[in-house]
Amino acid sequence: MTDVRVAGLHAQISHDGVDDEVAVEEPLEIVVDDRPLAVTMRTPGHDEELAAGFLHGEGLIDRAPDFPPDPDLAANRVLVAGPLLDDPGPRRFYTTSSCGVCGKGALEQVAVHAPPAPSGPRVSRELVAGLPERLRQPGHERTGGLHATGLFDADGHALVVREDVGRHNAMDKVVGRALLDGQLPLSQRLLCVSGRLSFELVQKAAVAGAPLLVGVGAPTTLAILLATDRGLTLCGFARAGRVNVYTGAERVA
Amino acid sequence: MTDVRVAGLHAQISHDGVDDEVAVEEPLEIVVDDRPLAVTMRTPGHDEELAAGFLHGEGLIDRAPDFPPDPDLAANRVLVAGPLLDDPGPRRFYTTSSCGVCGKGALEQVAVHAPPAPSGPRVSRELVAGLPERLRQPGHERTGGLHATGLFDADGHALVVREDVGRHNAMDKVVGRALLDGQLPLSQRLLCVSGRLSFELVQKAAVAGAPLLVGVGAPTTLAILLATDRGLTLCGFARAGRVNVYTGAERVA
Repeated sequence: MTDVRVAGLHAQISHDGVDDEVAVEEPLEIVVDDRPLAVTMRTPGHDEELAAGFLHGEGLIDRAPDFPPDPDLAANRVLVAGPLLDDPGPRRFYTTSSCGVCGKGALEQVAVHAPPAPSGPRVSRELVAGLPERLRQPGHERTGGLHATGLFDADGHALVVREDVGRHNAMDKVVGRALLDGQLPLSQRLLCVSGRLSFELVQKAAVAGAPLLVGVGAPTTLAILLATDRGLTLCGFARAGRVNVYTGAERVA
Repeated sequence: MTDVRVAGLHAQISHDGVDDEVAVEEPLEIVVDDRPLAVTMRTPGHDEELAAGFLHGEGLIDRAPDFPPDPDLAANRVLVAGPLLDDPGPRRFYTTSSCGVCGKGALEQVAVHAPPAPSGPRVSRELVAGLPERLRQPGHERTGGLHATGLFDADGHALVVREDVGRHNAMDKVVGRALLDGQLPLSQRLLCVSGRLSFELVQKAAVAGAPLLVGVGAPTTLAILLATDRGLTLCGFARAGRVNVYTGAERVA
């Protein structure tokens, strides 16, 4: 499952009399058994991974689905063959380029049934602090407008890296790749994101069974509370060789 | 409507043996006439502004609503008195800390009926480039985890600034404040955001009738396309006295 290649993430535009590159954002419709279930604003590419990761994060699938060919290849659409584990009911999902989980309408639905984190590997603080430097972001370097998520082994080797205008999409693509490869749960893996750590990213990491999530940016209170509740190691502000360990410090030597 | 005060945005936590401050993220349920309509992951404070701005951005209200007192003051909930302009139908909204518009389930629903941008003021490139420096972010300075949106007059004076873990929430709070004060549409105003410029932020600015939106970060392709379509001036990478003008350059001298 080694795949750190990214492509097709940027488009040429002209402004102020110069040519420039901009991160691509387009809607993707996820259709399950002819039922339009979700629209997410995403960067094109790896759409089947995105659909698989999204549906898994919502608790709607637990194994790799089939993807029937779409007769309309030009459509911003991915077809998924069901059945789903659960009836999404009246939920219809629309997620913007920075939204993680949509369509729910009551506070109790915010929580997800993520398992407790596995014991996982014990890693050095230096390794954790250095993961962002190993998170290659060629699309972001060209556009300044992409988030990234990386999946690493316990030695800090990058296994999968995905870039997207939506941080939740980048995470869904990585988890979806792992699902399609039969690599879930991520009990011996580390996840690293290029930005901030909000509730929904911790939620997705927990549902994927990861023991450790590190971000370049700041965590929120609810991200810390969820990580504490699930026993997941949450690290933030991983920059310049330093990192804050907010929860699950027993995994960081 | 001058109000640049922010408070209650951060919480004390302890990690690595030190005390620190973290941006607060909590769910807010928006209930219209006893119907739970939306849950958004937001930073507490200015919740009535957030509800008003959110409902306006969705095309569900066009004037300031009433807010009946909630008998449960401890609830993360804001009560709104209808009626709504439109039946949201089966849509239930759940927005994470970085999501803007949720609950829709088909591509055609992504577009909104925003009016063409007003002619608005003509401003200097220097003024536009300098707006982020006038976007005071005391909560972000303490936590590193908040986004901000500011509303400015044509001379660059800040009228309203709001911080939130969700960039769409900060925008909703600013637009909601303007709606509650009878100041919509924002035809002679400038909007400035602390982060990137995605589709949903341009959409919210367009629905609020603003002629110009500037961000510290990068725009996406769809943000540029929507701004072009609505005739809105979109500027990005406003940093260190420089700014890129992507669309509507006729308003920037």
